[in-house]
Amino acid sequence: MSENVSRLSGAVRVVGVGLLGASVGLCLRARGIDVILDDVSPSSVQLAVDLGAGRATRVDDLPVLVVIAVPPDVTADVIEAELARYPDAVITDVASVKLAPLVELKRRGVSLVNYIGSHPLAGRERGGAIAASGDLFIGRPWVVCRDDQTPAWALALVEDLVLEVGAVPIEMTPDDHDLAVGLVSHVPQIVSSLMAKQLSSASDDAVRLAGQGVRDVTRIAASSPEMWIQILAANHEAVVAILEQYGRDVAAITDALRNVDAPGSRRVLAETLAGGNAGVARLPVKHGEHRKFTSIVVLVDDRPGQIAQLLTEIGELNINLEDLRLDHAEGAQLGMVEFSVVPEVAEQLIVDLETRGWRVHR
Amino acid sequence: MSENVSRLSGAVRVVGVGLLGASVGLCLRARGIDVILDDVSPSSVQLAVDLGAGRATRVDDLPVLVVIAVPPDVTADVIEAELARYPDAVITDVASVKLAPLVELKRRGVSLVNYIGSHPLAGRERGGAIAASGDLFIGRPWVVCRDDQTPAWALALVEDLVLEVGAVPIEMTPDDHDLAVGLVSHVPQIVSSLMAKQLSSASDDAVRLAGQGVRDVTRIAASSPEMWIQILAANHEAVVAILEQYGRDVAAITDALRNVDAPGSRRVLAETLAGGNAGVARLPVKHGEHRKFTSIVVLVDDRPGQIAQLLTEIGELNINLEDLRLDHAEGAQLGMVEFSVVPEVAEQLIVDLETRGWRVHR
Repeated sequence: MSENVSRLSGAVRVVGVGLLGASVGLCLRARGIDVILDDVSPSSVQLAVDLGAGRATRVDDLPVLVVIAVPPDVTADVIEAELARYPDAVITDVASVKLAPLVELKRRGVSLVNYIGSHPLAGRERGGAIAASGDLFIGRPWVVCRDDQTPAWALALVEDLVLEVGAVPIEMTPDDHDLAVGLVSHVPQIVSSLMAKQLSSASDDAVRLAGQGVRDVTRIAASSPEMWIQILAANHEAVVAILEQYGRDVAAITDALRNVDAPGSRRVLAETLAGGNAGVARLPVKHGEHRKFTSIVVLVDDRPGQIAQLLTEIGELNINLEDLRLDHAEGAQLGMVEFSVVPEVAEQLIVDLETRGWRVHR
Repeated sequence: MSENVSRLSGAVRVVGVGLLGASVGLCLRARGIDVILDDVSPSSVQLAVDLGAGRATRVDDLPVLVVIAVPPDVTADVIEAELARYPDAVITDVASVKLAPLVELKRRGVSLVNYIGSHPLAGRERGGAIAASGDLFIGRPWVVCRDDQTPAWALALVEDLVLEVGAVPIEMTPDDHDLAVGLVSHVPQIVSSLMAKQLSSASDDAVRLAGQGVRDVTRIAASSPEMWIQILAANHEAVVAILEQYGRDVAAITDALRNVDAPGSRRVLAETLAGGNAGVARLPVKHGEHRKFTSIVVLVDDRPGQIAQLLTEIGELNINLEDLRLDHAEGAQLGMVEFSVVPEVAEQLIVDLETRGWRVHR
């Protein structure tokens, strides 16, 4: 990004000033762009204005771009209204499902030449303008759904928005997008929630045995039901297609385990587990590189300053860390710091840390 | 733990010198206990001896305690052989499934007065004696399965072993243990592997949209198939019982999504997601406390020393961190450091960090 020259010339109107809308406003205001805020709730607009995300609507506004950031179940209505209200503007939305609103608008016969759906893959655990941040989109993928009707200048305007907020534009069709987020976001949410649901009736002793594995699998099960009901309902076709395959796989491994000594049963187990190995290897590592890192664990006392001291020394050794994680051993006043480094430096780093007196898991 | 007086008087024999067996040996040797190592592979014994985990077997050995740490599918055979070879010793094993070997031994008519099954909830991604560590069990739960036949002195001997290596003994029946590990370890492994398996045929664009959620859900899908086939086969009854309920829940939410506008469908979605909320809340937080932490995210440049600098400053502010995690934004030279603190200090810490020039997500 250049520092002072904005790609967008003209005002940008943001409808819906929750987390995403207010964050778009903050980003664009920081780049000197005129941001117009609107919301069904006047007090939400006032809060977003106070936070510096933009200004209130005036009757003579003529935005070049409208960004719709309202809940999924009213997205189609708001798109239709904004297309009618600002016929010369390009309209985009940030809803996490792209096909359902499009189908609904086509059914109503709305002309969609000036509409380009989009979806930033960004979020936080907390919602609302109060949680908004100008950093929210930095480096995150932002899907843009063009079609053959989309004029080049309109597409360029939406991609300018994406680049302006520091995100990475990815062009996809609405169908591909919905299947993709079904696979990497919506079905994982269901899988995690259903696993966590099994824990709700567990004995106290059983949950005491929980380690990092089940914690990771169920972390996103803490998500807000209200938001997810809307998302899952809006993308139900793609989600059902993936869940049906997932359900068949659950049934197959259940059958194999029920008859574990029958011919072919262990092959089902092996194929499931190997399929999991292959699938998790598909997830891109950070920075988009497909590179393996070496994991190192160091034990530290559980008191302020120990971890900083460790990382200071690693910095002195001029080593860059990936995926650092701190964990406490249950019932012990010891912390475990786990991090990854590029394989070339791992052995020497372990030797150097041990020389300096650190307790390294080898 | 006292520093120099061992609870165990007499030699401890370890059969099977993989990760767990060799780690037990390292722990006990560090406490001055005579550790006798045995394994079907003489070269594995030699490696473990070289690593300091104990000494080779002698014909006149009279161990007071035998720890069996062999693969699940040979555990029953080795228990039977050791009970016959050392009739005055207490025999325990560390297999991750407790009912199957017990049932098999009872079927053979083996007297089990001197046998107490146990299971340390500890492990690493790498296996073998080379990965062994005297710290492996510190603070981890170690399940001990007594029954009404178990003499108090024999139980005390196994619990001494558990305390000696720094673990936390938990008494459970074999049935309760197997159901518990099925729930918090074995079924989560299957759920994660099956989710990851769906990714193996995904488009490159789809996996580019992956965020931290699906990464967490599928992390343990990278586990070794060989080990897990044995574990799942040995605990198939408990796993099937949990998987059947899980499968019914998958079918129910699939049906609800297939007919998303039918009466009752949204209630199924709500109950699934709320059930997940309730289940994940059952997992104990670290140190066994049920306490909420406040999450804070700080943006740092992706270069050596930045994170150490941040943590040094947090240390200067005398704040103790929980669950620290480093993540890189895709395509951006920025890292996000996410950590948790007790809620009482969060607001002041954010102000202090911002005063010092750090970019804090609020």
